Amino acid sequence: MPAQPDASAIYSYLGPVGTFTWTALNQAPDAAGHEWRSVNNVGEALDDVISGRSVGAMIAIENSVEGGVSATQDALASIPGLRITGEYLVRVDFDLVARPGTALADVTTVAAHPVAYAQTHLWLDKTVPTHAHLPATSNVAAPTALLGDSPADAAVAPHGITQHLALETLAEHIGDNTNAVTRFVMVSRSGRIPERTGADKTSIIVELPSDAAGSLLDMLEQFATRGVNMSLLESRPIGDELGRYRFVIDLDGHVHDERVADALLGLKRFSPRVTFLGSYPRADRKPVVPENRYRDEVFIEARDWLRGILSGEPDAGDVDAGVAPGQHGAADQGPQAG
Amino acid sequence: MPAQPDASAIYSYLGPVGTFTWTALNQAPDAAGHEWRSVNNVGEALDDVISGRSVGAMIAIENSVEGGVSATQDALASIPGLRITGEYLVRVDFDLVARPGTALADVTTVAAHPVAYAQTHLWLDKTVPTHAHLPATSNVAAPTALLGDSPADAAVAPHGITQHLALETLAEHIGDNTNAVTRFVMVSRSGRIPERTGADKTSIIVELPSDAAGSLLDMLEQFATRGVNMSLLESRPIGDELGRYRFVIDLDGHVHDERVADALLGLKRFSPRVTFLGSYPRADRKPVVPENRYRDEVFIEARDWLRGILSGEPDAGDVDAGVAPGQHGAADQGPQAG
Amino acid sequence: MPAQPDASAIYSYLGPVGTFTWTALNQAPDAAGHEWRSVNNVGEALDDVISGRSVGAMIAIENSVEGGVSATQDALASIPGLRITGEYLVRVDFDLVARPGTALADVTTVAAHPVAYAQTHLWLDKTVPTHAHLPATSNVAAPTALLGDSPADAAVAPHGITQHLALETLAEHIGDNTNAVTRFVMVSRSGRIPERTGADKTSIIVELPSDAAGSLLDMLEQFATRGVNMSLLESRPIGDELGRYRFVIDLDGHVHDERVADALLGLKRFSPRVTFLGSYPRADRKPVVPENRYRDEVFIEARDWLRGILSGEPDAGDVDAGVAPGQHGAADQGPQAG
Amino acid sequence: MPAQPDASAIYSYLGPVGTFTWTALNQAPDAAGHEWRSVNNVGEALDDVISGRSVGAMIAIENSVEGGVSATQDALASIPGLRITGEYLVRVDFDLVARPGTALADVTTVAAHPVAYAQTHLWLDKTVPTHAHLPATSNVAAPTALLGDSPADAAVAPHGITQHLALETLAEHIGDNTNAVTRFVMVSRSGRIPERTGADKTSIIVELPSDAAGSLLDMLEQFATRGVNMSLLESRPIGDELGRYRFVIDLDGHVHDERVADALLGLKRFSPRVTFLGSYPRADRKPVVPENRYRDEVFIEARDWLRGILSGEPDAGDVDAGVAPGQHGAADQGPQAG
Repeated sequence: MPAQPDASAIYSYLGPVGTFTWTALNQAPDAAGHEWRSVNNVGEALDDVISGRSVGAMIAIENSVEGGVSATQDALASIPGLRITGEYLVRVDFDLVARPGTALADVTTVAAHPVAYAQTHLWLDKTVPTHAHLPATSNVAAPTALLGDSPADAAVAPHGITQHLALETLAEHIGDNTNAVTRFVMVSRSGRIPERTGADKTSIIVELPSDAAGSLLDMLEQFATRGVNMSLLESRPIGDELGRYRFVIDLDGHVHDERVADALLGLKRFSPRVTFLGSYPRADRKPVVPENRYRDEVFIEARDWLRGILSGEPDAGDVDAGVAPGQHGAADQGPQAG
Repeated sequence: MPAQPDASAIYSYLGPVGTFTWTALNQAPDAAGHEWRSVNNVGEALDDVISGRSVGAMIAIENSVEGGVSATQDALASIPGLRITGEYLVRVDFDLVARPGTALADVTTVAAHPVAYAQTHLWLDKTVPTHAHLPATSNVAAPTALLGDSPADAAVAPHGITQHLALETLAEHIGDNTNAVTRFVMVSRSGRIPERTGADKTSIIVELPSDAAGSLLDMLEQFATRGVNMSLLESRPIGDELGRYRFVIDLDGHVHDERVADALLGLKRFSPRVTFLGSYPRADRKPVVPENRYRDEVFIEARDWLRGILSGEPDAGDVDAGVAPGQHGAADQGPQAG
Repeated sequence: MPAQPDASAIYSYLGPVGTFTWTALNQAPDAAGHEWRSVNNVGEALDDVISGRSVGAMIAIENSVEGGVSATQDALASIPGLRITGEYLVRVDFDLVARPGTALADVTTVAAHPVAYAQTHLWLDKTVPTHAHLPATSNVAAPTALLGDSPADAAVAPHGITQHLALETLAEHIGDNTNAVTRFVMVSRSGRIPERTGADKTSIIVELPSDAAGSLLDMLEQFATRGVNMSLLESRPIGDELGRYRFVIDLDGHVHDERVADALLGLKRFSPRVTFLGSYPRADRKPVVPENRYRDEVFIEARDWLRGILSGEPDAGDVDAGVAPGQHGAADQGPQAG
Repeated sequence: MPAQPDASAIYSYLGPVGTFTWTALNQAPDAAGHEWRSVNNVGEALDDVISGRSVGAMIAIENSVEGGVSATQDALASIPGLRITGEYLVRVDFDLVARPGTALADVTTVAAHPVAYAQTHLWLDKTVPTHAHLPATSNVAAPTALLGDSPADAAVAPHGITQHLALETLAEHIGDNTNAVTRFVMVSRSGRIPERTGADKTSIIVELPSDAAGSLLDMLEQFATRGVNMSLLESRPIGDELGRYRFVIDLDGHVHDERVADALLGLKRFSPRVTFLGSYPRADRKPVVPENRYRDEVFIEARDWLRGILSGEPDAGDVDAGVAPGQHGAADQGPQAG
């Protein structure tokens, strides 16, 4: 990190050092070599971006086991002026850590954030059957407390925390689901859209016009009729009453892809509110290859065809075969005509 | 009709004087005061237009009882360079006519075009039970033959034919279906599209990409997702093998309506062949009023919204509510993040 | 044909001997060895069936060039008590025939049914450029008239007519489209449905509930959501006013196929009128193989599953994995619950 | 509660007395007068039901602000043998409570479950700006701790907790969203389905067959083509990898409603896994009135119609109008037939 922090290049993240968010930020090329600002929650991180204190915030948006991160989704739905510019994946991997000298057999009280506790519960029940749970406010707060006067003997912490704290690892990889992954996004102020790479995602949030059966179907048809695939569809309550939802959606493709742009137009005409959250390269770099009928060229040809018709060009919008007129229509039209 | 026919203002029609097509041509304001050219079938009429011998051809396209006029639909599907510029409705109304002095009781042989015969069959069976049918090549050829050496005693003819031929009417309105109506269209060379009036129709012919179940559904969804209603859907065999069809379609609205233009784009991307036959005022002058979500303004707003996003305007594509950032996202993100 | 006609086994057809319908009847195994009754039109043929004079009627229903046979489709739509039991394909193949001794160069007047004339028009124009057309009431009436006092020198007739009439062939295969095929169906009184063969067709006629945009889409979705393909979709005017249609539909499969039966149920609930015209073996004997998800077993399994739920069986309708309860739901429910 | 607990009538709930779940249980007529068993989380509550220790468990399933309760949804998706039998709504209403004698001005440390803290955060920041947050394991654990040796001065607790604990209320209704409601469900072992009341809900969990674009659309069409409305659609990660979801769905109507049963059949044929969670009366008692075309009678009529066809009844599946045969089909079939 530079000695003299450049205000225009500070990145906010849910800290402190050692959190999964910090791990995600380590993957972001933009953030390398700049100042990183540790904050306490997604609200503070986004405030930093909105206020200009930071140029970017790394925030968790979805977990493979827990689902969408509600706080993030709701914040992105309601705070104007934000744009996602990249995505990053981090394995959710927990260790059990303790003060130097503590043995696993000594552990009676385990500090853990409630959700981390839920995700290591099977392992703890089996390995430390008689333990008590002491809730912590965050995954790094749990082990950090061991360095203070916490009554806990051990803490559930992100894997690798002992690189940052003077603690020892009692057991590694204690998560009940070893495939759990969290998806993070880098969020900046609106503006320039990252270049199309051919392996992109577009994130939007959509409200439906009414509770009428079929309005969700209408929405999905906007994508289906343009060959646009969805990789994420989350419903979130709008919050004013039960039964009213908005949808957090990730589309395969970039807003510079004709089919994606056209689907957004269709959606915008239909929905009372569409929030464009950004187009950005996919974390997995997997190319998005549309069916032939949805390629850019097909959209462009169709527009050229229609433009020809509207401009009154002779033969525009016509059949293309050069059939000799004499070959047609010799059949009698019958008494409706004659 | 002018003494010196202006080549650029000749109109072709299925003649001779007195046919239903002639009646339709009398309704067309453009044709009034110009030369009318009688031809023998729809093929000749369209050849006149293609070759430039005529500026317009009046042709029958659909009958309320018999359905689409196949010869017309197939000719419009295969001859390039044509455009429909107006539509006209004519009641299909038949009389039984005879040489002066003939009484109904004298009638033993009735000249009639086969289709006209089918449409007056119930009346003839009841009124002239022992008659024989002598087929004629057209509705006006049937009565005209009575003036020559035809063995027929009477003829089925368009109502009002006695204004043009020295014959007498034995019975009026003898059609079995008194509501039968034929729809005619004026066809010209491609070029300028008639102004949008708000009560317009757009005619197209569409081939489907394959026989796959669902491709027709795909086609209809192009209209349904833009709120475009169809007033005509006729399938016609493409003719190369059983089971391959093209569709003759009339849409409510004008190609200058955003929703119609957008539906045509969607259709064009999807279909191997879309023939634009024209946008023109409806014969019934009934205004086409789309649902609010399909009005032109909605399409324009959506484009403006997308343009803002693509241009990188700050806050474009965002939620519009001015929510204070501090009100959001204070909830903890849990161990996926921290 | 038997010496003593068995009234219960008479078959009606559009005659006389030599018509395309007669050729189709020769293909029908049921009709072999029984009395065949020649009639003048589809109406008479169907009347024979309805009245019990015949056990079957062979009628043309669709042509690969001309499309659906309107008279047949409209008759099937409105006469109750009929059922299609088989389909047969006949090539539409015309010859030019004349009295013995006539040379092609002698021909000046050609007798032909108007539609046959339309279908041989290009050949006639090229080969007998100065000919006149004398309309005939049917394809066999045209050559038959040559044996009487017709002023015609030649006639357009079904290929092979000289096996039945003392005429000579001037030219064979003169149709402008050499692939033209007509599809015929055998029609009987309602009753027993032909066995399912695995290569079947089901014919229905459907009216739509209203002119509302989307009702046709609703109809097609009844097929699409059950994986039922359509091989024919013809619109026919209902006849009371312009813009009101019924649809003549052929489905791939047999009413004994679960997916077809279920689609018919869906259709029946939705349409003001569905006419079941029959399930019968396809003329081309091509097997209909549905996608796995639409096989009979899948329908039966689903019904068994639902029956279990409705009967209150323990665990019916449940997840099938035997997950130990203790592995779930340890996560805290948060303050909404506690 | 009875002096001698009847093992067959114990109800489990997230306790202790005073939780929102306890309030929900007070609304359940079945539970009145029976023993209530306080448990620590949804997993224990469902284990009680599965093991037979309890006949029912009251659990939170959805919150109007926070959305679906993931732990409940995931447990219902994976534990076999459960059935929802009723739903209950409870306002999420918080008070700030303290030991007797404490004034609001004295408060420096507030005990609160992290989610309760998030939901009262705006009020606390405004009213007690300099407070510290001490996390608690549950909403009742927070105030209960005040009776022990907790360093906290006050606690966020469910409204009304002072009826159960010897504490005093410093402020009522301190939730940031005063409309927040939590929906609870009573869960029992599979078996008898509650009677249809006309104001019912059906809950299911559905997995989609693949990630293919359009499979969600297929699912929604199963409902749309039967006029079945959804009041809840939540996506939950299946948990094995990012991008794989199951859907938690509430339908309007009862499985004894024909349209609902038919939609479930359609869904079952299509989905690799459908879990039926139950049909039960809606908490709001609002009647579900389907469109006419989706009423039970319409389904029954359609089945009777099809049964007539399959049984070979004469005239079954036919047009119903008694049209005289002679009125039809007199039109010539043309050269395709004759």
